[in-house]
Order: sequence, then structure tokens, then C-alpha cells
Amino acid sequence: MKGNYAAVYGAVLAGCKAYYGYPITPASEIAESASALFPKFGRTFVQAESEVSAINMVYGAAGCGQRVMTGSSGPGISLKQEGISYCAGSALPCVIVDIMRGGPGLGNIGPEQGDYNQVVKGGGHGNYRVIVLAPNSAQEMCDLTMLAFELADKYRNPAFVLTDGVIGQMMEAVELPEPVTELPDKSDWAVRGTADSRHLINSIYLDHDDLEWWNRELGKKYEIISRNEVRVEEYRMDDADIVAIGYGSCSRVIRSAVDLARERGIKLGMFRPITLFPFPSERIAQLADRELKGILTVEMSNGQLVDDVNLALKGKMISDLHNRMGGNVPSALEILEKVSELYGV
Amino acid sequence: MKGNYAAVYGAVLAGCKAYYGYPITPASEIAESASALFPKFGRTFVQAESEVSAINMVYGAAGCGQRVMTGSSGPGISLKQEGISYCAGSALPCVIVDIMRGGPGLGNIGPEQGDYNQVVKGGGHGNYRVIVLAPNSAQEMCDLTMLAFELADKYRNPAFVLTDGVIGQMMEAVELPEPVTELPDKSDWAVRGTADSRHLINSIYLDHDDLEWWNRELGKKYEIISRNEVRVEEYRMDDADIVAIGYGSCSRVIRSAVDLARERGIKLGMFRPITLFPFPSERIAQLADRELKGILTVEMSNGQLVDDVNLALKGKMISDLHNRMGGNVPSALEILEKVSELYGV
Amino acid sequence: MKGNYAAVYGAVLAGCKAYYGYPITPASEIAESASALFPKFGRTFVQAESEVSAINMVYGAAGCGQRVMTGSSGPGISLKQEGISYCAGSALPCVIVDIMRGGPGLGNIGPEQGDYNQVVKGGGHGNYRVIVLAPNSAQEMCDLTMLAFELADKYRNPAFVLTDGVIGQMMEAVELPEPVTELPDKSDWAVRGTADSRHLINSIYLDHDDLEWWNRELGKKYEIISRNEVRVEEYRMDDADIVAIGYGSCSRVIRSAVDLARERGIKLGMFRPITLFPFPSERIAQLADRELKGILTVEMSNGQLVDDVNLALKGKMISDLHNRMGGNVPSALEILEKVSELYGV
Amino acid sequence: MKGNYAAVYGAVLAGCKAYYGYPITPASEIAESASALFPKFGRTFVQAESEVSAINMVYGAAGCGQRVMTGSSGPGISLKQEGISYCAGSALPCVIVDIMRGGPGLGNIGPEQGDYNQVVKGGGHGNYRVIVLAPNSAQEMCDLTMLAFELADKYRNPAFVLTDGVIGQMMEAVELPEPVTELPDKSDWAVRGTADSRHLINSIYLDHDDLEWWNRELGKKYEIISRNEVRVEEYRMDDADIVAIGYGSCSRVIRSAVDLARERGIKLGMFRPITLFPFPSERIAQLADRELKGILTVEMSNGQLVDDVNLALKGKMISDLHNRMGGNVPSALEILEKVSELYGV
Repeated sequence: MKGNYAAVYGAVLAGCKAYYGYPITPASEIAESASALFPKFGRTFVQAESEVSAINMVYGAAGCGQRVMTGSSGPGISLKQEGISYCAGSALPCVIVDIMRGGPGLGNIGPEQGDYNQVVKGGGHGNYRVIVLAPNSAQEMCDLTMLAFELADKYRNPAFVLTDGVIGQMMEAVELPEPVTELPDKSDWAVRGTADSRHLINSIYLDHDDLEWWNRELGKKYEIISRNEVRVEEYRMDDADIVAIGYGSCSRVIRSAVDLARERGIKLGMFRPITLFPFPSERIAQLADRELKGILTVEMSNGQLVDDVNLALKGKMISDLHNRMGGNVPSALEILEKVSELYGV
Repeated sequence: MKGNYAAVYGAVLAGCKAYYGYPITPASEIAESASALFPKFGRTFVQAESEVSAINMVYGAAGCGQRVMTGSSGPGISLKQEGISYCAGSALPCVIVDIMRGGPGLGNIGPEQGDYNQVVKGGGHGNYRVIVLAPNSAQEMCDLTMLAFELADKYRNPAFVLTDGVIGQMMEAVELPEPVTELPDKSDWAVRGTADSRHLINSIYLDHDDLEWWNRELGKKYEIISRNEVRVEEYRMDDADIVAIGYGSCSRVIRSAVDLARERGIKLGMFRPITLFPFPSERIAQLADRELKGILTVEMSNGQLVDDVNLALKGKMISDLHNRMGGNVPSALEILEKVSELYGV
Repeated sequence: MKGNYAAVYGAVLAGCKAYYGYPITPASEIAESASALFPKFGRTFVQAESEVSAINMVYGAAGCGQRVMTGSSGPGISLKQEGISYCAGSALPCVIVDIMRGGPGLGNIGPEQGDYNQVVKGGGHGNYRVIVLAPNSAQEMCDLTMLAFELADKYRNPAFVLTDGVIGQMMEAVELPEPVTELPDKSDWAVRGTADSRHLINSIYLDHDDLEWWNRELGKKYEIISRNEVRVEEYRMDDADIVAIGYGSCSRVIRSAVDLARERGIKLGMFRPITLFPFPSERIAQLADRELKGILTVEMSNGQLVDDVNLALKGKMISDLHNRMGGNVPSALEILEKVSELYGV
Repeated sequence: MKGNYAAVYGAVLAGCKAYYGYPITPASEIAESASALFPKFGRTFVQAESEVSAINMVYGAAGCGQRVMTGSSGPGISLKQEGISYCAGSALPCVIVDIMRGGPGLGNIGPEQGDYNQVVKGGGHGNYRVIVLAPNSAQEMCDLTMLAFELADKYRNPAFVLTDGVIGQMMEAVELPEPVTELPDKSDWAVRGTADSRHLINSIYLDHDDLEWWNRELGKKYEIISRNEVRVEEYRMDDADIVAIGYGSCSRVIRSAVDLARERGIKLGMFRPITLFPFPSERIAQLADRELKGILTVEMSNGQLVDDVNLALKGKMISDLHNRMGGNVPSALEILEKVSELYGV
């Protein structure tokens, strides 16, 4: 099964009730799969008039307590930033899939990771965070989409599945999990079209102290998420003296590079953030306590992930950067060469 | 003269030909001033149908080689992120004023700095940077707006004037600079509605290598900007052993706190980034070489600036954070108390 | 059951698969009923981003061969005129409910019939007609909505249900017809999301002769409709020597006026067009052959219906006009007075 | 000078301050000319985000007392119907140029007259009329555009210049009139951005009696217009015993047909409505008093003008119809043949 298809299956299995989207390559395939699959399972699929329209439909459905999803790519995610900020400010759970493409501007439709900052740091109107999961296989496209719904509901917060065309197009065997049978009860806050549940769901706090209080509350929530929901994958890290850090497509290439390095006697290990927010800062800080020859961040963007890695390292070490852009995916060999060149191995 | 009015005067003096905007409090006053002032000087003011419409009109005018401006606040800037990314990707000079309001979501219309991440880190589709200037007085609203036009043209890049309602509403004497009389020649790239200047201005690079090349070119440009355009203000830093870092409104409060501290024998100094991109990372790194008791970042957001300060400090020191949100502005006294509490002075 | 609710029930019974709408008083109640009722019967309800969005969703669903409905009021119908013309030009069956409100412009939300021209004469881009049914009771709201679906499919043409708030709010016993069990086969022209049904459904005929041919074909269709689908209601017409003509709400008042007139020995009869297109021109022309004292057109608009009555009468008689506007509904008594005044009875 | 260009020159000479448009063939040329010409004369040209946006900008400028213009073609005019109704309901003078194209739907870009009903009968939300002028030469494109501005202001009502691509593309010598030097004073109702002129300009009349009153007032205005502003052109009508009626492009062809007919001894005359609203009903009624062999309406639409001709004739005669559609323009010869065939001459 293709990764994109797996994500949509994951949504259905997670009890997602509706998909609202607007077509943009390379995310159109997600929408297309949803348009085929959702109605078969009695779920709703709507192609909205615009990206802005789609995210506001998500807002509406989330406010009604429904599990709801949208998907897009960089330029479309940009247009959705206002709505995402509204969802975050109104504490509305929803899932957004971003199949990243080459940027900035229109760029091209090749795989990239240039949306890291706009998704992880918050590209919309301020002071909020979204949960960001970064799958690197078709299986994870399914599993992490399901997890995104779970975490979104658990924390009443938007959750992203951040990936790129490589993962989406990847054809792999996928073991479909059991469908979620019991959905969380949201009757204490969601509107349901009934007189007794009628109230406004919004992000307005006119009084300065109220909004400050709300931001502190959000901050506490983000701290709890940071404490409890960090997920990473390590590969051959036990004896590694060089660590390559990367997520999504890059982590697959790093894994190959690790195997290749080991054949040559280079003790390379892979550290892969699965959650980008919460970011595995502590785990990365711990890397600096080991006697490493070097840390290399591999990303398909202009030095965005590496900033967070270095922020986490707190100067104990400085991560190097190997990056490709524009739709180019780094190869295992070029990672290995970079490692050799940088660390003299 | 009010700060907002000063910014619009700055635009006129800088030879700005057109203002395209959509009303949103507290940025409406900028638009209102522009609607009054621009026509008087033979410039164009258009209230567009939407935030999205306004930024795309900016794209159009910038592509025609005109100095052009728009303004908005957080939620509107979010909607403009796609267009901003397009401008950056197409190397189009333009000036965007963001009068920040309380967030996330609708929040409120009080002063805040919660847009730091969405503006400085790039809230739109990836791999680009915008120049960000942060005035803290009515005079600077004028001067930095003029500078924004100059830098935008110099580097063919969008430039932001990032501020909040406090600065915008501030009534201060403003010395108006001489108007710019010679505008840069853009005839080598801009379209002018003539047959010979007819070509597409866009950000599409279908070939992966081409887009990667373009991103490397952009990267080089950002490095040059980082090297040449950092601007900071220091106040009583010579003998300071505690440094408070802040921009915009916060820097005004910090300055008062410094004076207050000095009266009490506390050697507090102010370090104020005037440019947020380029960020004064080196200058901040040098602070750590001094024997400081502490560094306190003061911001009106949820810990955004402090991340960049700490990234710059590279672990040699860790900046503490004092932040207010929701429209609340920190007072000099509460900064002083925080300083006392944290550093035992 | 309220008339508005009855219309939505009619749609469900007619096998309508989807409702796309945008809220506008007094049509919001139709949308609201649909949002409640449609999902219960496994149908789709979407509140679109705009009136324009809604009618284009209708275009899409109709092109997929689904029975589909939208509803609005005057200002919204205006915005939909482009889409309605596209549906007509592409020969797409669909049903549009117009709950007329006071005009022009925003006017008010009172009952009116001012949309007659924009609906019956074609308010969109040229040369097309839409079928227009005008119910005057809750029962007919149900029955004529069902008929609208039938005629729309029979002639592959948009069909309107044109009414006003009086009929929509009217509480009457409604006998629900049997649901339509067999929907027409549209597989010869509709797209179904399959490779073999993939083709464009549009209204483009680049060649002048082709578009002229298409318009002649449409013209023939409109003639067939005019020949076969005229529906009228007559009340006490056998011996009437004065005829009052009106549709919708007006026809209810006329009926009361007829009864009142008869008590007073005035031989008033009612002639009520149920279909506005096809317009009962021949039947009206025949009225002129009787020895009538007068014909009075009663409408809640500025002399729109009366033009079509007079066009039909071909000068053999000239209909007088009694009209109210702005949300005012004529009373039986004022009709009677007008009759007395005009015809000396 | 081309007809389209002449219309834009007419606007400038009439003191039109702003043009707001959205591109659509074949009206794009009007917008293009305006974009070139308006700025040269210190006027404003804005390409709006959409047709809807453009008409609402017109509403805004008209409300500020400025002479303002927009232009479009059938599908775009459809989208503008809401805004046109708002202008009419708010009694705002403005000028709209409709360069008609083949319909319905997308149709094609050939010349047609299919927008007659949507423009003359009112395609928007009810009970209003717009002044409609129909030029048939480049000179008239200029003159009637100027007249449209004059009548719009005189009656505080939207005025259309209704034409097609044939007239727009026609290259003819145009004598430019003197520019209007004194614009009407609108200070008693227009807003001017000053505190004392601050009031709402809208079309809301919540009270039913108020809206009915307003509609009666509008009705009186339309009657005055009907009495005073009818304009027609007659050609060789003195001794004509057959009359061909047509406007715009058709009237040029009819004129040729008249000359051709006269050569053959057929006494054909031309009757050409220059104003479509007010419609020359009385003048047409008078035709029936002459001993005519026949009246032939020639139109490039599906029998729209002929309805108004027959309504005017009140059954004393019935006009025949010769029509072409889809971009096809009738030839003088085919009109002559039709005349021969119908009237045995």
C-alpha cells in the first residue's frame, strides 16, 4: 500500500468523520484517496472552495466534536495558518497532513522538508504549538495518523502529520491496526446542534489578563506534551561515535548510510525524531554527554532542523549540517562522504 | 506624531507608490493613515477584498518595480504567508508592517509580540527569510520604514516592520527625513507593461537542481544580509553585569528598568536587537564572554525571542525569560524584581 | 409541518443526495432543516464558504449525476447567477430554492416576489431558461420540490422552487408522498470518478456555429417544456367575469378575496400560474376571449409578473396591477377594494 | 480609434475617477485600455481579486461621490448582479460596461446580445432598473459612455453601456468631445472620509412600509427616466412599410439591409433603440399605427428583445424575429431574405 493511502486508511480506522481539502500537488493524492475511501465507510469528503475554506470547515467539524482531517502542501499550509492558529487558540483537536514540496513560493513538487519552521515553530498568529509527527514509512503513515488523532483529542490541540512525497509514494506492506471503537466523549465542550449545547467556540479573550491566563494554560499543556509525548527512533546508537540526525525521508537514507558506514568500520548511528513537537531536546542534549566525534543533522531544507538540534545541544556540541533542497534527496553515499570529510573517518 | 502615522510618512518619503491593505485592528490605523496620506502625494491606496488579495496586489506592484507596502496584524499576516513566501521566492522587494496583537487565534487587540516566530522564522512555505526591523519609537517607525524600503530593494527581498500597538499609538516628536529622490533602477528585472519587459516573474523552478541552486543563492543572500545589516542598540552596557534583552515596546520598558536599577546600584544594561533578521547572534555570543551575572530576555510572547537568544549563546550562558502576554506589557518594576529574584541583586 | 421543512422532506423523498448552501435569511431555515434531515437519511449537507462556492458544488454534484439542491434568497441568488448559467449551459439538472426577501439590495427579510425577473427571465449570462415552480402551501413545498427534481432530470435543466417566507413559515398538515425509488440512469453523460466516465462537462462551444446549434437545441427544449409542463390552478373561474392573477403567497390571498367577493355578489375568479416558466401564456390569452370586466395581476414586486401577463394577452386586454412591496403582503380586502374601484363592482 | 478605447476615453473625459475590473474576454481590452489610460490622467485603475470584488469597489467609490466605472462580460456581469442590485438599492451612480459574449455558461468569446435580459430586466435581487445605453459605433462608445455618467449622476442610478465585441473592435474616426469640467455636487449624500460626512450608505430598510416607500420612490424615478430619456435612431423610416428593429451591432447590419432593400425597391426602414431602459415602448407602439407590412426584430440572442417589442406593440401587431447566436452576426443579405420571405416583397 502506498504511504498516502495508508494515512487515509489510518484516518478511517481512527474514526475520522470528515475530510475537507483543496487540491495541491503533491498532497492531492491524499485528498483523492480520501474522496474514494471516506464515502465507502460512511464518512464525509468535501473538496472546499479554497485552502482557507477547508481549514475553516475543519474548525467547524472539530468544534462539533468530530474527528476531522485536512491535508495540503506548503503553499496551502501557508494559507491555512490563520485557521490553524484559530484551532490552536480554541483548543480544537484536528489532524492536518502536510506533504511537503519544494519551496519557497511555488517552487516545485519535489520532496522537501522546508515547511519545518512554518509547521513546528508556528507559522500563524502567535503563542501556540501544534503536535507534529513525522512518519518515515507507509506503516507509520497509517500508525502516526491514528496517533495524531489520539493525541489531538488527548490534548485538545491540532496535530500535524508532516511528511513528503517520498514517503507518500512509497509502496510497502502495511499491517492495518484494529479500528478505534470508542471515541472520546467531548460532550462537555463540543457543540452538537442542540439547544443545550449551544455556545460559542472561539479564541477571543478580550481581557488582557484572561488571554495571558489562557496562554499560560496553553504553555502548561505544551510542557506536559513535551514531557510525555516525545518519540524517537535510534538505530545502532549503542556504540556510535558519530550521530546523524534526521526525520522522515532523511531518516531512511541515514539508516542506509549507517549500514554502509558500519561495513567500512565507521561507527555511525542514527537518531531520528518521530515527534518534531514535542522536540526530543533532552535526548539530544544527552548525546553531547557521550564522547562523540560529531553530530550531523541531515535535512531537506535550508538549516531549520539543525537550529533546533543546536538549541537542544546548548553549546556542548555543535551539530554540522548536510542539506539538500529543491526536491533533491540526499543519498546514503553523500552522507557517508560528508561524515568522512567532517570527522576524518 | 503617532507612530503609525510616522510609518506611513516614512513610506511616502521613501517613494512608496502604493499601499494595499485589508482592515484589522490594531493595524487599521496604518491603513487609515495611508488612505488619507497616500492620495495627497499622488500615491495609490487600495483596500483589497481580503488579506490574500492585498498581498497578491503587493506581489503585482513589486513585480512592476514599484515600492509597495501592506500592513496587517497577526491573523491577517497568517493569511498573507503564502503571498509572502511567493514574494521571497520571486525575490520581490516589498514592505510589510505587522502591528502585533494578542494571540493565538482571534485573541485580542492588545499589544503583543507573539508573531515573532511567524515573521522571523518564516511562517510560509519554506526555505526563505525576510528582513525584520523592530522600531521602538515614533521616530523609528518613520526611519525604519524608510530603511525597510532601502534594504528590500538592496537585497530584492521582503522586509517587515514588526511592532505593536504601543509603538503605533505613541505620540512623539518626529523629525521627518529628506525624501528619497532617486529610486533604484529595476529595469533589468521588473515588468513595466511594455512588450520588451514582458516576462514571467515567479518562483517556479521545476528542475530539482535549479530549485536547489536557487535556494543556495537565497542562502548566500541571507548570509550577506546577516553579515552586513545587523543593527542593535545598547544602553549602559559598558559596565553592566546583568543584561536585559528585548525589542520594540519591551526595550522601552527595559530602558526604564535600567535607569531604575542603576539608581539602586544594580548594574543592569540593555541589549536591544533592532533587526530581528538578521539576528545579532554574534553580538549576543560576545555577551557570554563578559563576566555577567545573568541575561534576561524580556518578551511579550511565549518564549520565542529567548530561543534565538539561547541559540546565539551556544550554551555559554542560558538566558532567563520574563514574559507577559495577552496584551499585558511588562513594567520596569517587575523587570527589576525579576532581576533581583534571579540574580540576587 | 412548516413549508420549509416540507421542501427539505420533498428533496429527501425525491432521492436528493446532497445539499450545498450558504446561510441567508429567510432561506437559512431551509439549510438548517437540510443540515438536520439530510445526514439522518445518509445524504450530504455542506455549508459552503460562499454562495458562489455552493452553486459550484451543485454544478459538481450534478455533473456526477447526483440529485442535488441548494437554496438561498435574492442577494445570494444574484451571486449564484454565474453558476446557474453554467448549469443551464451544461444541461445539468439541479434544484434551487429561492425564498424571496424584500429588495433591491439588502432590502429586508420580509416576504416579497421581487426575484421574478432574475429567476424567470434569466439573471445570468444569456440565452437560457430555468424551470420555475411556485408553491403556495406546505404540501406543495413538498410536492413541487419533488416535481422540480423530476423535471430537472427529465429535461436536464436547472429547476427553481420560487417562494417566499410566508409559504416557508406556514404550518400545515402535509401528506408525505412515497419516496422515489428509481432514479433516472445518467450513465450516458454523467462522470462517476471512473476512468471510462472521465470527460469534461462544460458549456464551452468555441465554434460560433456549434454554440448557435446548441442554443437552437436549448430553444427546442424550452419549447417542449412550454408545450408540456404548464401547470395552473383555477378557482371559481367558470362564471367569473373578473380574474385576479397571482402566484405563491398572493394566490392564497386572492383565493380569500374570491370567496369574499362572491359573498358580495362579485364574480371574481382566481387564475394562478403554478409554473412561471413555462409561463401559461396560452391559457392567459384565452382569458381575453371571455367577456371579462377586467384582469388584475396581484404581485409582491414592482410590476414584473404583470409584464408577462400582458405579453401573453397580446393587447386583447390589458391587465391592471395591484402590487405591494417591501415585505408587505396584500390583504384580501384591499384586493377586493381595488377590484371594486377598477371595475365598478 | 477602436470602440473599446473610445469608451475608456469617454470615461476619462467624463471625469471618471476610478476603474475597477477583473479580466474576462472580450472585456479585457476595456480594462487594458483603462490600465494604460487612467494613470496617465491621474485616475485610478485597480485589477481586483474577482468580479465580486470589483463591483464592491465600485460601490465604495460611488458612495464617496466619485465617478467610477467597471467593465466585464456575461459570466462576470452575472457575478456582479448582487453588487449591481446593492448599487441600485442604495441609489449609487456608477457606469458598467458589458461587452457581451456568446452564452449561456462559458459559451464562447464571439459577439452576442444574450445579456439583454440579465441587464435590462434586472438580473439581481429584485425591483430595480438600470439605465442601459447601446452604442453602435466607436464614436458612440465614447459619447454614450459620457452620457452614461451624466445620467447615472442625474438619477443616482447605475447605468450600463451594453455592447459587443464587434463594436468594441471597430476602428473608426472618433471626434473626442470636450472634457466635462464641472462635476455634480454630491456633498449632500456622499461620504468623504470626514467626520461630518460619516454615515452609512446602504440599501437596508428594515421596516416593511419603509422599503415599500423606497420601492415606490424608485418606481417614480424609473417613470421619470422612461418619460425623459428615451433615445432612438430612425433610418429611412418616413416612407417605410416594413420596419426592422435592432440595437448595437445588429443596427449596423440593418442599416446596410435597408440600403440594399431600397435598391431593390423594398421600403424597409430601421428603428433602433439607443436606450434599452428606458425602452422606447411608445415609439414602437406608434409604429403599429402606420400601415406596415411587417415588423422584424433582429437580435443576436434567443428572442429577448422581441419580447419587449411585442410587449410595447400591445398586440396591434406582432413582431417577427430573426436571430443569430453563438457569435454569429446576421448579414444584411439574410435580413433581406427574411424580409422577402415573411412579407412577400
